[in-house]
Amino acid sequence: MTINRERLWHRIIELGSIGQDAESGGVTRFSFTSIERRAKDQVTEYMQQAGLIVREDSVGNLIGRYEGLDEHAPAVVTGSHIDTVAQGGMFDGALGVLAAIEVLQSMHERDQRFKHPIEVIAFSDEEGSRFGFGMIGSRAFAGTLKQADLIYYDEQHITIAEAMRSAGYSPEHIDQAARASSDIKCYVELHIEQGKVLESLNQPVGIVTGIAGPLWQQFTLTGQAGHAGATPMLMRRDPMHAATAVLDFIYNEVRQFKHGVATVGKFRVLPGGINIIPNEVQFTLDLRDIDEADRNELEQRITEHAQRVCTELNIDCNIELLQRVAPAPSSPHLIGVIDTAAQQLGMKEIPRLVSGAGHDGMQFQALCPIAMLFVRSKDGISHNPKEWSSIEDCEAGADLLYYTLKQLASESY
Amino acid sequence: MTINRERLWHRIIELGSIGQDAESGGVTRFSFTSIERRAKDQVTEYMQQAGLIVREDSVGNLIGRYEGLDEHAPAVVTGSHIDTVAQGGMFDGALGVLAAIEVLQSMHERDQRFKHPIEVIAFSDEEGSRFGFGMIGSRAFAGTLKQADLIYYDEQHITIAEAMRSAGYSPEHIDQAARASSDIKCYVELHIEQGKVLESLNQPVGIVTGIAGPLWQQFTLTGQAGHAGATPMLMRRDPMHAATAVLDFIYNEVRQFKHGVATVGKFRVLPGGINIIPNEVQFTLDLRDIDEADRNELEQRITEHAQRVCTELNIDCNIELLQRVAPAPSSPHLIGVIDTAAQQLGMKEIPRLVSGAGHDGMQFQALCPIAMLFVRSKDGISHNPKEWSSIEDCEAGADLLYYTLKQLASESY
Repeated sequence: MTINRERLWHRIIELGSIGQDAESGGVTRFSFTSIERRAKDQVTEYMQQAGLIVREDSVGNLIGRYEGLDEHAPAVVTGSHIDTVAQGGMFDGALGVLAAIEVLQSMHERDQRFKHPIEVIAFSDEEGSRFGFGMIGSRAFAGTLKQADLIYYDEQHITIAEAMRSAGYSPEHIDQAARASSDIKCYVELHIEQGKVLESLNQPVGIVTGIAGPLWQQFTLTGQAGHAGATPMLMRRDPMHAATAVLDFIYNEVRQFKHGVATVGKFRVLPGGINIIPNEVQFTLDLRDIDEADRNELEQRITEHAQRVCTELNIDCNIELLQRVAPAPSSPHLIGVIDTAAQQLGMKEIPRLVSGAGHDGMQFQALCPIAMLFVRSKDGISHNPKEWSSIEDCEAGADLLYYTLKQLASESY
Repeated sequence: MTINRERLWHRIIELGSIGQDAESGGVTRFSFTSIERRAKDQVTEYMQQAGLIVREDSVGNLIGRYEGLDEHAPAVVTGSHIDTVAQGGMFDGALGVLAAIEVLQSMHERDQRFKHPIEVIAFSDEEGSRFGFGMIGSRAFAGTLKQADLIYYDEQHITIAEAMRSAGYSPEHIDQAARASSDIKCYVELHIEQGKVLESLNQPVGIVTGIAGPLWQQFTLTGQAGHAGATPMLMRRDPMHAATAVLDFIYNEVRQFKHGVATVGKFRVLPGGINIIPNEVQFTLDLRDIDEADRNELEQRITEHAQRVCTELNIDCNIELLQRVAPAPSSPHLIGVIDTAAQQLGMKEIPRLVSGAGHDGMQFQALCPIAMLFVRSKDGISHNPKEWSSIEDCEAGADLLYYTLKQLASESY
């Protein structure tokens, strides 16, 4: 037995009840609200029970520190977040924070101390559900959060800065939350998978080889409207025809890339009459890969094909960049440490997978090496009251995190 | 010189001013309104100037009859409609009615009488703009209008029956508008093309080889929503991917059919998030061909392909029939008569084309042989204030109609 799974499970359920809708079972904890405050107070209590020194920084990151033997050694950082989407689940974010606390409490109970300190952090507002701008805490931690970012506002027109201030934090001092690279050894996060890969492989946990940053584009194809009957096919300038050719290329081409995924989730046709040839088709493309060179290659091929097709069909093609987030590969060294930890636990061939969804670790590429552990999600469901991971799977993840953190904190450098 | 083009042109402009928006120039004449009444009064005056016997039937068809020499001979029927879409043009429908009146007035002035009588008819409500149900007058003329059809209603919830009655007609006696097959020799309509084929061929007029009836279907493809990042391509059930494959097949396959046209004008994706794999895609298909066997073949191939693709991609596929209108081929004999008339006018190789848009003649397939003449539309624009045909092209069309009607009215049977 490595960690106390009943204690971990009890805390998952207990924390999950804060902000929980009695009817749907969905959990809603937006950042800088009184509900989130209650959750932070609860987590603070867990951290204290684990023997951690607890503090909150200027942007509300809740930090529990397990001191090391060498007071100058950089910290091994772990954690996740405890804010949620609207009507989310009990595991997204919370599991990573609670598993890390459980690991440290188990070490504490065994009086295990290592060269490096270990910090478990519940980062402020990872989801971005309240302000449409997420990873606020991790950005501040990495020193990349800007004053200009704090003007995003919620549905009540309250800005991030105002919300922070009313929660007792110091938006004017976000720089105080930034940590020096020399102060941080690495970042390892445990999180639920939010997909079905582990389930399909019948495995409780996996190693994330990288976080695939999203590239968001909006395509606007413009042709000429016309009567569906009165215009022969060869005389049409039908942007729907061109859009079909572009999408067909996307779905075929993405298969050439091992980790590439392409999603067309928004699609609008104007004027939108059943017997009218459209004059405009607009759609979005969400393109992800953990290898930025691959994503760039795929992006370029799609752009070239779209322009070629549109020229052939006499369609105007405009491609607007909405967002370009760099992918964050995991550190090979950290992956190796996790692999060794898995062997210590008797796990064989722990699966490797990609994180398509974004996570706080993405913000730390210039700060420190990163890696993640994923725990199996039932039916791949997340951001939903039905989100679920079994007690056995949560235990397996926490056990793996235990041996991983133990090894990292023991390393001599 | 065959017809009086200045008189024709003057009437086009004069009739076009009734219901015309001073600002946009668009013409709006919905059926059974006081504006349409004014237009009918104006056309009645023209018919009387042309020496016709004028009457209106029980559904408001305005009929001008040019008597023949044989009182038992079936009538050669021509005409079109004078109702319009909202903010339409001056030529759609009106040109066919006014050109026919001009032809008969020219014959009348030359004291030309033929074996067969000739009737010019302005059919009630061809467009369907007011009630969402069109070709009311031509359906009644063909004897296919039903009492059940009269319950369609306009935006003010006035039914067709109520509108007819308030305009002074007799919805309870729609059967009185029906004509016997033995009473009608044939139907020839002149209309603007509403497309660009004649313009691209640099020809003022063309012969319509058939009216391509529309087949309307609605496809609903259902898969499973998911996070754009967290689901690898091979684990997706993305209905957008399936829809792309179906559309790609449609645009490629329709080219195998000489007269086939396919239009996807409505398209909806749910839930419609940029980073969410859709769970439902719904789109419409408007499929037309003048050859019903070809249209059936195309429909079957598309259905089979859609089902195959959706099975492969694990997508549920539902295809709903919204409307199936039979195509109406032109009579080879009437096409021959028009060809001969064109030769008499010194026109060489008059182009043949398909009418993709519907017209009143479609209703007469069981009543009599039909054919149509098309007059070139500037830039192919119709149902728009910019709709335009030049005075020379209108004259060419009316001249061709003159020789055509003269020949048909002179035939011995």
